[in-house]
Amino acid sequence: MQLLLVLIISVLSLVFALWLTTNVLKNDTGTPEMQVISNAIKEGAEAFLRRQYKTISLLSVVFAIIIFVLYAFLRTANPNDPVSPLSMAGYVTTSFIFGALSSGIAGYIGMFVSIRSNIRTASAARTSLNRALQIAMRGGAVSGLFVVAMSLLGVGGLYAALSRLGGLAPEKIPFLIVGYGFGASFVALFAQLGGGIYTKAADVGADLVGKVEAGIPEDDPRNPAVIADLVGDNVGDCAGRGADLFESTAAENIGAMILAASLALAAQRAGFGFKYGLVGVMLFPLVVRAFGLIASIIGVMAVRTKEDADPMKALNRGYYITSVLAAIGFFIGSKWLLSMPDGLPAGDPRQYAWLYYFFCGIIGLLTSVAFVFITQYYTEYKYRPVKSIAEASLTGPATNIIAGIAVGFECTALPVIVISIAIIGSFYLGGKVGLPGSGLFGTAVATMGMLGTAAYILAMDTFGPITDNAGGIVEMSNQPDNIRIKTDRLDAVGNTTKALTKGYAIGSAALAAFLLFSAYLDEVRQYTLPAAPAAVALQRGGTTGAPAVLPPTKSPASNSASDMFNFNRKTGEWVAIVNLAKPQVFVGGLLGAMLVFLFSAFAIKAVGNCAYTVINEVRRQFKEKPGILAGTDKPDYARCVDIVTIGALRQMVLPGLLAVGMPIAVGVIFKLMGIGAETVAAFLMVGTICGILLATFLNNSGGAWDNAKKFIETGMYGGKRSDAHKAAVVGDTVGDPFKDTAGPSLHVLIKLLSTITLVLAPLFI
Amino acid sequence: MQLLLVLIISVLSLVFALWLTTNVLKNDTGTPEMQVISNAIKEGAEAFLRRQYKTISLLSVVFAIIIFVLYAFLRTANPNDPVSPLSMAGYVTTSFIFGALSSGIAGYIGMFVSIRSNIRTASAARTSLNRALQIAMRGGAVSGLFVVAMSLLGVGGLYAALSRLGGLAPEKIPFLIVGYGFGASFVALFAQLGGGIYTKAADVGADLVGKVEAGIPEDDPRNPAVIADLVGDNVGDCAGRGADLFESTAAENIGAMILAASLALAAQRAGFGFKYGLVGVMLFPLVVRAFGLIASIIGVMAVRTKEDADPMKALNRGYYITSVLAAIGFFIGSKWLLSMPDGLPAGDPRQYAWLYYFFCGIIGLLTSVAFVFITQYYTEYKYRPVKSIAEASLTGPATNIIAGIAVGFECTALPVIVISIAIIGSFYLGGKVGLPGSGLFGTAVATMGMLGTAAYILAMDTFGPITDNAGGIVEMSNQPDNIRIKTDRLDAVGNTTKALTKGYAIGSAALAAFLLFSAYLDEVRQYTLPAAPAAVALQRGGTTGAPAVLPPTKSPASNSASDMFNFNRKTGEWVAIVNLAKPQVFVGGLLGAMLVFLFSAFAIKAVGNCAYTVINEVRRQFKEKPGILAGTDKPDYARCVDIVTIGALRQMVLPGLLAVGMPIAVGVIFKLMGIGAETVAAFLMVGTICGILLATFLNNSGGAWDNAKKFIETGMYGGKRSDAHKAAVVGDTVGDPFKDTAGPSLHVLIKLLSTITLVLAPLFI
Repeated sequence: MQLLLVLIISVLSLVFALWLTTNVLKNDTGTPEMQVISNAIKEGAEAFLRRQYKTISLLSVVFAIIIFVLYAFLRTANPNDPVSPLSMAGYVTTSFIFGALSSGIAGYIGMFVSIRSNIRTASAARTSLNRALQIAMRGGAVSGLFVVAMSLLGVGGLYAALSRLGGLAPEKIPFLIVGYGFGASFVALFAQLGGGIYTKAADVGADLVGKVEAGIPEDDPRNPAVIADLVGDNVGDCAGRGADLFESTAAENIGAMILAASLALAAQRAGFGFKYGLVGVMLFPLVVRAFGLIASIIGVMAVRTKEDADPMKALNRGYYITSVLAAIGFFIGSKWLLSMPDGLPAGDPRQYAWLYYFFCGIIGLLTSVAFVFITQYYTEYKYRPVKSIAEASLTGPATNIIAGIAVGFECTALPVIVISIAIIGSFYLGGKVGLPGSGLFGTAVATMGMLGTAAYILAMDTFGPITDNAGGIVEMSNQPDNIRIKTDRLDAVGNTTKALTKGYAIGSAALAAFLLFSAYLDEVRQYTLPAAPAAVALQRGGTTGAPAVLPPTKSPASNSASDMFNFNRKTGEWVAIVNLAKPQVFVGGLLGAMLVFLFSAFAIKAVGNCAYTVINEVRRQFKEKPGILAGTDKPDYARCVDIVTIGALRQMVLPGLLAVGMPIAVGVIFKLMGIGAETVAAFLMVGTICGILLATFLNNSGGAWDNAKKFIETGMYGGKRSDAHKAAVVGDTVGDPFKDTAGPSLHVLIKLLSTITLVLAPLFI
Repeated sequence: MQLLLVLIISVLSLVFALWLTTNVLKNDTGTPEMQVISNAIKEGAEAFLRRQYKTISLLSVVFAIIIFVLYAFLRTANPNDPVSPLSMAGYVTTSFIFGALSSGIAGYIGMFVSIRSNIRTASAARTSLNRALQIAMRGGAVSGLFVVAMSLLGVGGLYAALSRLGGLAPEKIPFLIVGYGFGASFVALFAQLGGGIYTKAADVGADLVGKVEAGIPEDDPRNPAVIADLVGDNVGDCAGRGADLFESTAAENIGAMILAASLALAAQRAGFGFKYGLVGVMLFPLVVRAFGLIASIIGVMAVRTKEDADPMKALNRGYYITSVLAAIGFFIGSKWLLSMPDGLPAGDPRQYAWLYYFFCGIIGLLTSVAFVFITQYYTEYKYRPVKSIAEASLTGPATNIIAGIAVGFECTALPVIVISIAIIGSFYLGGKVGLPGSGLFGTAVATMGMLGTAAYILAMDTFGPITDNAGGIVEMSNQPDNIRIKTDRLDAVGNTTKALTKGYAIGSAALAAFLLFSAYLDEVRQYTLPAAPAAVALQRGGTTGAPAVLPPTKSPASNSASDMFNFNRKTGEWVAIVNLAKPQVFVGGLLGAMLVFLFSAFAIKAVGNCAYTVINEVRRQFKEKPGILAGTDKPDYARCVDIVTIGALRQMVLPGLLAVGMPIAVGVIFKLMGIGAETVAAFLMVGTICGILLATFLNNSGGAWDNAKKFIETGMYGGKRSDAHKAAVVGDTVGDPFKDTAGPSLHVLIKLLSTITLVLAPLFI
């Protein structure tokens, strides 16, 4: 019943997204000049995506084979395996491929619509700002809805298939479909890396030769790299971030299902299960996500603006509507699926379980709002941080950079405090329920709350490249100024929404991290401890879950992870331990932190290397065809697009393989030392902590430099072409690979670490 | 006997240092022009130190009172307290004050000699390179010897005093004198922050107005901030780094003594103590450090060069001699104090205990050599990384910065791998001894090995500001070119040695971190568990330390830290747990990482704020006295020195209080949640991991930018005054606060976190 509801809402959302697509595509496609440019962007983006998907497919197939072989042949069977090693290999590999495929499809369709919405937005801007806003937002919503609905459909569908097929206990199913989340992460990593490298290599390359050497303005049609730059906005922000959030929703749904199963089983053992049983609790995350989809659809359709109003206000209104509706959906979902049946003694906290969890969800929603505000504070020029960078530009590029880095380091503090409060608060509220694992499930529910508005947020994000492109098309097709002003206003809003989405993405990654660790530890526990040891104990100690439970008679299975679990006499549960005081585990943490730094180094260098090839190509074209700069000869856009495509795809491989290879290497090497699973846990946790901080630093410093430049362009400190402006341009260029390549790729890396360890956990034990 | 030896060697080293001082001071003090400049530096440095010490004294007294009150009145007495709360408060507070005082004295004397050696080095350069080299190195050695010998004397003396006075069990004494280490850290934090802010504010300020605005060369006497810049080299590199390493040796000696006591007790419980008993093992760290002092003295005296040879070779030769002698000393110390008496059964690993630990020491020595090489690779222009930054300067400052940051992120990888191998290798070797805690003591011994050459390394470090100043004096007093070439060669070597010392300091901080965590956990254990519970168990299970020990009948004291310890049935020891899988502990880790970023932000901003006041002052002088630039009027150096002094002291307070206040806040807040000690442990560990990485990034990127500029100045990519050079100057300026303020301050912060948690642990339980 719950599953059916989830599947129906997902399918209906997809149908709605298709309707939106036709609705957007119906709009006018502007003048022939506009179409020439739009077509060039379209072709470039599609060519990149085609080639990128070819590379990713190849890598995915290789990796799928590796997973299959590892699972089927190299791993020694564990007595706690839910199915035979061969079927297990089959399930995990199939869900991996399925996850990769779904992520690819969602990304492709999102971009398909995005690169067709840009010209329609540009064209509509000629008559109505509201019309242009709505086209851009609805075009973006196709991407948002497809991502969330496809991920829901994938997880729900796999769950349905396995529960029909296998005769498996429901609580075992999530461990067999974690491959879906990993497949999605795998694609997301390369999509974000490739897209991020593409967009910034094109941008930096175009700027360094165009603006600096040739002295022509941004988005000037004489620049051979200008189309590549516009393509980049689509492949980086749209396809990349789409894959990122696809992965978030998929992985976090599965992780939450794992914790839900643990909680529901604990409730049963304590003698009083949830009203709708194990399956009801397990499907809770999917149901509230489905409600979130409905909330987002209503929010998107509510976006409209007056011709002279600030378009950001319209988007914010839609966001608030979505948030309130998502909260209502959360209330319904909690009351429905997390209630206990009547019959508990008065004052037993379990009867309020649903209420405690509802508040956990509200904590998550509030966390996302807090992240939106913090990101604005650190990246908008209304506030002190960006102003301080602009002021430092007066004494040259060096002080501009120093100020930006100081702001970047500083801006990590508030997000960490917010996340800390959210984790501890939701753990505390969940813990009030008083069941083993109820606190952890509280953090999972908070994550669900935070992701409730994901589809809307993603629509706002894709709004960014659509309006950016619309601005570029208007600029390059020489439209009158009053239209340009309209698209500029939309573009400025798009810059803000892109920054907010990054804040939201890292915030949800941070909050989700704790949920995913716990899922990993739960998985290790399942493979290590004899089935339900506490149940044996509880039968002796009483059925109420009261204290004084005897330790189980059976001691844990003697594999390398067996001293990762401690029997708690008070609650009768096995507590997972990741003991940083062990040298190997500490070293695991150290290596996790190192991965984050090294990966960032590779990502930043990749942009530099790829930009270098662009610079050389643009220089070559200017030299061989002097008519280009004079305006008498046409530059060869396609060749630039081609060169960036090849460069970005080549450059994404090294950081990608590092990200995938290092967790495996750590797991395998430390397994040989007899302490694989625990070391990997520390690797994952400390890597995640460092990743959150470094990504926040990279995203926000980049955003702050960008807006410090824009602040000066409003006429401050001498305005455009002043020395301060030149200094600010240096900061902006430095920030480009920070905020659009390394930072967003780190989000994906963090989640990839979780999913890869979830999938490969059985190999490290 | 061992203690007497330590005290005698320490005193003799101090006597030798005094002899070196008179030996250096005997030398010729050059021409009157030289003396004018040297005196100005001397006065500036002394004025700064005087005022800085006044501020630090004030802060120390306030903090001493806080510690006393917390210990004496606010803390509830613990049944495991070694003495009454009031005496405990007295011991801890007294050792805090004593540590702060010793650090101050060592720093003052080091700088006293350093600011007098500079002119003698400059003067000697007029006749002999060898003579100049020797004066600079011996002047530096005074600082190195004073720091190491004073710290040894302090720890040894306090130990002697308490063991006479108190009737205390020897193993309890280190917990009462940890205050010494914390006092040293406290002074080091402010000394390094204040000195680091001073040196870079003066440098950046002098450069931005002098070089960029007025177009006069570096070290030009017309620049009013030029003396402040030369003073800065002394107060930052000499006094700051001296305090840093003073703290290292003090804190790590005490930490190693704590682990030594645990090991020796475990050996006794297992029925077979070390030959020289508990006290012998506990004094082992002090004895090998004393041997290291002798090795360093011989190494320093062996430094000599031919007139036409590379002075770096001479310093390296001295370093190798010191290393080999330190290794021999280590061999003697291990064989003497870590041997077991005869009578162990053949094949029992305990009879090779001393040999295993000797090899742990060698691991430490090799680690320090590895760090020296890695630092050279990433910061010298012979190698790829710096070359890549220089090449990136061709396309402007933005690409220079991007390349530098990529190199900085990348250069964290190798040090982490080396540290990982060192920790696991020494833990494994130590573990071979087969006693509880023997592995942990192995990591402590490795740290001792790494610190064996500390005095020599510190001499090389102080060599840096002495030769830098000598170069400045020669330049400003218009000496002939052939002399300038000689001091330039020495100055170049000094730049290298300064970079190496930073690599060494961070490496030893990283390796020591694990030892200090373990000491902290040991302290928490002492306050939490009933005395020697495993002993009870072992009496039942047998005396050989064989497996199958029964768990103790008494369960741990029920304070908030009691579930931090797990009884290991195999070894009969209580294992400390820092469980990152608990939400509060994970949040502790997150907050630790955040502290590192926020502290760096504050340190970098402090430089900016202080530099700003310098810029305004220099501009004011140029404007009010136009004769300065024409060379007809003298600038007011003293006023600049004054302004930087006030600015640096004001700016050091905020980051300093953050560093001291946050661990206390975390401990107290989480104690209220019932989980103080464990959260603080995670705070400390993850903070340390992030700190190691961020400090490595900051130090090495700064060094690499510096040398990329120097590489271009050798004539590459257009040489001086080319656009590439201008771009490289931007990178160099950005790197200044990285490598000389934030990076070195982070070393101190890492160690301060350890010592503050060691001192305040009883409050968090």
